[in-house]
Amino acid sequence: MPRKPVVAIIGTGREIESAISNARELGRLIAEQGWVLITGGRNAGVMRAANEGAKSAKDCLTIGILPNRNTEVSPAVDIAIVTDTGEARNNIIVLSAEVVIGVNGTGTASEVALALKNGKNVILVGVDETSKSFFERIAKNAVHLAGSASETIEKVRELTDQ
Amino acid sequence: MPRKPVVAIIGTGREIESAISNARELGRLIAEQGWVLITGGRNAGVMRAANEGAKSAKDCLTIGILPNRNTEVSPAVDIAIVTDTGEARNNIIVLSAEVVIGVNGTGTASEVALALKNGKNVILVGVDETSKSFFERIAKNAVHLAGSASETIEKVRELTDQ
Amino acid sequence: MPRKPVVAIIGTGREIESAISNARELGRLIAEQGWVLITGGRNAGVMRAANEGAKSAKDCLTIGILPNRNTEVSPAVDIAIVTDTGEARNNIIVLSAEVVIGVNGTGTASEVALALKNGKNVILVGVDETSKSFFERIAKNAVHLAGSASETIEKVRELTDQ
Amino acid sequence: MPRKPVVAIIGTGREIESAISNARELGRLIAEQGWVLITGGRNAGVMRAANEGAKSAKDCLTIGILPNRNTEVSPAVDIAIVTDTGEARNNIIVLSAEVVIGVNGTGTASEVALALKNGKNVILVGVDETSKSFFERIAKNAVHLAGSASETIEKVRELTDQ
Repeated sequence: MPRKPVVAIIGTGREIESAISNARELGRLIAEQGWVLITGGRNAGVMRAANEGAKSAKDCLTIGILPNRNTEVSPAVDIAIVTDTGEARNNIIVLSAEVVIGVNGTGTASEVALALKNGKNVILVGVDETSKSFFERIAKNAVHLAGSASETIEKVRELTDQ
Repeated sequence: MPRKPVVAIIGTGREIESAISNARELGRLIAEQGWVLITGGRNAGVMRAANEGAKSAKDCLTIGILPNRNTEVSPAVDIAIVTDTGEARNNIIVLSAEVVIGVNGTGTASEVALALKNGKNVILVGVDETSKSFFERIAKNAVHLAGSASETIEKVRELTDQ
Repeated sequence: MPRKPVVAIIGTGREIESAISNARELGRLIAEQGWVLITGGRNAGVMRAANEGAKSAKDCLTIGILPNRNTEVSPAVDIAIVTDTGEARNNIIVLSAEVVIGVNGTGTASEVALALKNGKNVILVGVDETSKSFFERIAKNAVHLAGSASETIEKVRELTDQ
Repeated sequence: MPRKPVVAIIGTGREIESAISNARELGRLIAEQGWVLITGGRNAGVMRAANEGAKSAKDCLTIGILPNRNTEVSPAVDIAIVTDTGEARNNIIVLSAEVVIGVNGTGTASEVALALKNGKNVILVGVDETSKSFFERIAKNAVHLAGSASETIEKVRELTDQ
């Protein structure tokens, strides 16, 4: 039996309404496909919303890659991986995912750039032109844009051959 | 719903028959309790045996914390976390588990010591007196010995209040 | 006696002529101020050039933060710190420096973003408008531009109160 | 010009008198040979003592590999490398040293074991028989005992061909 696709959602820990609403819907849709959701696992912002969205589906699995041993983990995370490596845990998130979804906001610039540098496909949801141009110069063919959560899921499917 | 207990099995990547047979039975029993198994994830020795043992149970979940991006992962690992931190990934294994089981062999000395230093309970299976004395001086009350796989499971149950 | 300022130069490992020439001059000037140079330490591109430049000054000290245990280290690195954490070693570089200098090229996007996220001042040498706009949105007041190596050194001096 | 030997001293952060006095003398002697001292860098116990000892020599260089960005660093550390990887920074210490000196106390068991596992020579100062037997089973030929600081320095010299 092949391993299930692992999909990362990255985004800000701040409570930005549009990002949170996007993340919640993406989490739900990822879980409904039977895929595994991986995030930074904190009980805040995009991370919490994505995991809570996933929990609205049956049989979902959510993995949280926590920065530190004292990090408050989202209750919607099933498996908490305690890295104790601070920001360096972003390297672990992007390396462990097949596809990385970046939810709007520049808070994720280093993670998106890291994912591209590591040869991962990144789907950006709700980004502006400056970010798009910037990231495309790092790895043109690995940057994908999506206007909605359902379009994002379609792109994940294409990119992972599901 | 409370999070399921996550139990780590650590042990050598070499093919030592007694260690492998212990690991396989422990993996199976952990999965049968509905617990989550976490290991170093490599396709070798104790890691492979523990994951394969777990796969003989229905509905098990196995997490592999891989040292590098090129590590060959055991096919019996459900979720591969790619840390790219080499030996430092042992810190992540012990921090992410509630209880750590060390399967016989001195190859795991640094991991066992690390787990004790991090305040984790460690159950040692099949260790000799020198190792026992040594580890008890690091953290006397956190070192537990077990003579068999079923005894190990009983101790995990006590230590995690299952 | 106060600790000497530690200044990081980050940049591509590829052999891009303008970047290499900038890095070599910056390395020399940093060493001539009596500051400590920290880089990724590899024997390639900007890293090698910066360390070689530093070695043309008397009494310089060069620290290389290596990604892996097998990395080929620049002979111009005095102290090689072997992290074995791959790309995550960039976190260590930016956290260990007072000021981070990014030499032209988009290969350093994740490092620059990481430095800004960690509250470090970053001086960008030879960047274009897209990169500038992009990074300024992460931390407007921490992004500094310099047109030449000597201007870069002036900015380091201001930012570190030397 | 060949790189100077880098020698690690590892030991407890607690204030144990015999360990501290050993560490101080070792730090001084290492610096007097013109070698570079590397430690965990904290302002406590063996780490502080070793760095302070080194500072009593002229032209010494002390490197501290700090666990976290908020760690209080010993004022006697010249170059502070901020890893933000918690206990995992021990991997970096042992990989960056040519020889590792373990000062008495079991607090260093995981670091000593890690050093041996990574193929490093370890000199143990003031250890008891249990520890000695235990470590010799990990890597018999890489465990060296020394009864005094000067004997330790002699062994470092042999092991690094100085």
